[in-house]
Amino acid sequence: MSRPLTVAVAGLGTVGTGLLRLLRDNGELIACRAGRPIAVTAVSARDRHRERGVPLDGLRWYDDPVALADDGESEVVVELIGGAEGAARALVERALARGKPVVTANKALIAEHGARLGELAERKGVPLAFEAAVAGGIPVIKALREGLAANRILRLSGILNGTCNYILTVMAEKGREFAEVLAEAQKLGYAEADPGLDIDGIDAAHKLAILAALAFGRPVDFRAVHVEGIRALSALDLRFAAELGYRIKLLGIARETAEGIEARVHPAMIPLEAPLARVDGVFNAVVVEGDVVGRVMFEGRGAGAGPTASAVAADLIDIARGRSTPVWGASGGALKKLPSLGIESHVGCYYIRLMVLDRAGVIADITAILRDLGISLESMLQRGRAPGEVVPVVLVTHETEEIRLTAALSRIAALEVVVERPMVIRIEPG
Amino acid sequence: MSRPLTVAVAGLGTVGTGLLRLLRDNGELIACRAGRPIAVTAVSARDRHRERGVPLDGLRWYDDPVALADDGESEVVVELIGGAEGAARALVERALARGKPVVTANKALIAEHGARLGELAERKGVPLAFEAAVAGGIPVIKALREGLAANRILRLSGILNGTCNYILTVMAEKGREFAEVLAEAQKLGYAEADPGLDIDGIDAAHKLAILAALAFGRPVDFRAVHVEGIRALSALDLRFAAELGYRIKLLGIARETAEGIEARVHPAMIPLEAPLARVDGVFNAVVVEGDVVGRVMFEGRGAGAGPTASAVAADLIDIARGRSTPVWGASGGALKKLPSLGIESHVGCYYIRLMVLDRAGVIADITAILRDLGISLESMLQRGRAPGEVVPVVLVTHETEEIRLTAALSRIAALEVVVERPMVIRIEPG
Repeated sequence: MSRPLTVAVAGLGTVGTGLLRLLRDNGELIACRAGRPIAVTAVSARDRHRERGVPLDGLRWYDDPVALADDGESEVVVELIGGAEGAARALVERALARGKPVVTANKALIAEHGARLGELAERKGVPLAFEAAVAGGIPVIKALREGLAANRILRLSGILNGTCNYILTVMAEKGREFAEVLAEAQKLGYAEADPGLDIDGIDAAHKLAILAALAFGRPVDFRAVHVEGIRALSALDLRFAAELGYRIKLLGIARETAEGIEARVHPAMIPLEAPLARVDGVFNAVVVEGDVVGRVMFEGRGAGAGPTASAVAADLIDIARGRSTPVWGASGGALKKLPSLGIESHVGCYYIRLMVLDRAGVIADITAILRDLGISLESMLQRGRAPGEVVPVVLVTHETEEIRLTAALSRIAALEVVVERPMVIRIEPG
Repeated sequence: MSRPLTVAVAGLGTVGTGLLRLLRDNGELIACRAGRPIAVTAVSARDRHRERGVPLDGLRWYDDPVALADDGESEVVVELIGGAEGAARALVERALARGKPVVTANKALIAEHGARLGELAERKGVPLAFEAAVAGGIPVIKALREGLAANRILRLSGILNGTCNYILTVMAEKGREFAEVLAEAQKLGYAEADPGLDIDGIDAAHKLAILAALAFGRPVDFRAVHVEGIRALSALDLRFAAELGYRIKLLGIARETAEGIEARVHPAMIPLEAPLARVDGVFNAVVVEGDVVGRVMFEGRGAGAGPTASAVAADLIDIARGRSTPVWGASGGALKKLPSLGIESHVGCYYIRLMVLDRAGVIADITAILRDLGISLESMLQRGRAPGEVVPVVLVTHETEEIRLTAALSRIAALEVVVERPMVIRIEPG
């Protein structure tokens, strides 16, 4: 067997220690698959003395993670610090600049700076690998860059955030409200104390930006992703969705149209029989539609020490074997500059929930506005009567342009009888 | 852009012409992803003059497919003839012996001769790639060899034959009998005129043998796969399965136990909520359970010109990029020689359907036999009474050894009141 591939690991949180444990426990098997042992030789973390359940004896310790880039006796840098800026970014830039291969699980960094980092890696002729940045242990980046590489990708959609999917699953199954389920998820460790990155859709948008860049062969562009989170959803909406034959999921969707690329993260209503509708709890899933392969779905755990370490180790095995792929799936010069489309140009069907005063003529006023803007209705639900009180009215539109819908909603919201901001959910095939 | 990768294609049936069409239609995109164009320069097929909808002008034509191995102006051989012997085998052997990379979609060849062919390829230092041999366009071989390579695989199971899955889906949904649905599937082109390879489980067993070899790092061994098909299933069994909360699927299952490797293809009852239970029609799916990644599922079209060509082209792109992996995922010397376990050592729960004369004491006789062999029952169903007539009795056992069950069944079958061969279906988690 050849000499080991030597690795420096920055960040020894759950994923970092999970990786050290995996490389130790499955070391023999990994050496067989990689053609040589993979040996961690240097590490960096905030606290040298914390008990991590993995021995660090014999490893070179660095207090400054960025210094790992200069460690002369390790060939590859694994960045598990996280965050788009600060030490993570400095380390990755410095390592690439020094011509060292980098493996990272950092979706924020890759989504926000991946285009430039990719160019740097290409210029230096070294791999920049980030399988762990999207959908945990599911090898979906490899699938897009390699396994499905002969396909023009028409559309991809995915459940990319386990925290949101857990919350929406419990809301749907138990009929409970968002705030309550979030609090519980925080207690169970399924949601962070500061949950914004997850529940406001940012984390899913980071991942979608990466998938869209790979799928459509364009430079990664996080700013072009339209993002909405799940805070505003009410148990009422999940109930109406079920009644109408749908599930509500936080989806990341990217699509090539004749005009350009749509990339958006938002709650979506999808038919009960769509494969993504059945992906519940903390699971992630990605559906890729290729022009020759058809629809392929990948499902698994999207987070956690094990799945993430599995993906990082797979990237290390690729490097050990000398298998390499351009960072964004095609050589830099080949990347297309397709325009990004704003959400206002989206065309689709919509679920609209209004809270209105139950008075004669309300529905007529609302439907007149929709008619004036050329929006036609597929169905309308007004459950229960309570004259003079506030009741929900649900409208489902036929296909229409979002810009038209937005205009209609601002007029509808201005009606005196409409007492809350209208709730709007896009309807998607899945 | 560098010079093209030149390819010789043997076999111009639906897959072969599909490949030519794909390499032409997506040629520019494929060249970006592969780093250079992929150009078919030579072909061989039975009939030179058949109309195929793809122009063959300018391609060197060979009447003898095996001669493609000696074509001096193509670098890679793509074998799409099919069959474990004959021209397919001769061509692949000769191409490898001459040091030419081979891409094939031929599951029978790889399942039956893959160990030897893998050694030959390794000795010659050339790739032998067969992503298209299992689950069509779903990149599951790449996932096992690369994406999940850091995992010890504990178990894998899959719906590997679209014809069987289509037949079972229609039987379950419409309550119709096997023979009738098969005849219809043949008319629709979902089943071959000679359907044995599919419905007797051979095709699924070829694929399972390949997956098991990759998952457990052992030489591929088709003979070690226990195979049962779906001919004997009756609409009655699918109805009882639904009543008990199960679906019946033809599964390929491979599992590492303390004693060795189990590999088997047979109809299995799986809980309605198992992910594979929801994979219907001609779709294929594979669930892989890794020790660190947990459960990952891959789903998509398992056959057809498009999906198969997509997988063959992905293998060609890997070769064009110079990405290589040992044929069986680890270098030859590293392959373990884990013993194969026979089906008699299987331990699990069983569904048993008996057709018995409705007479007093029948159930007592049957349960006494089970008790004597130490088999305990989880449930028993005897729907309807018809004294003196033949009625179905369904038994579901707790976990037991197959060898014990076989003994019990031979005694039960010998009872005078038992009028048909007992139907037995293994119950699986999915």
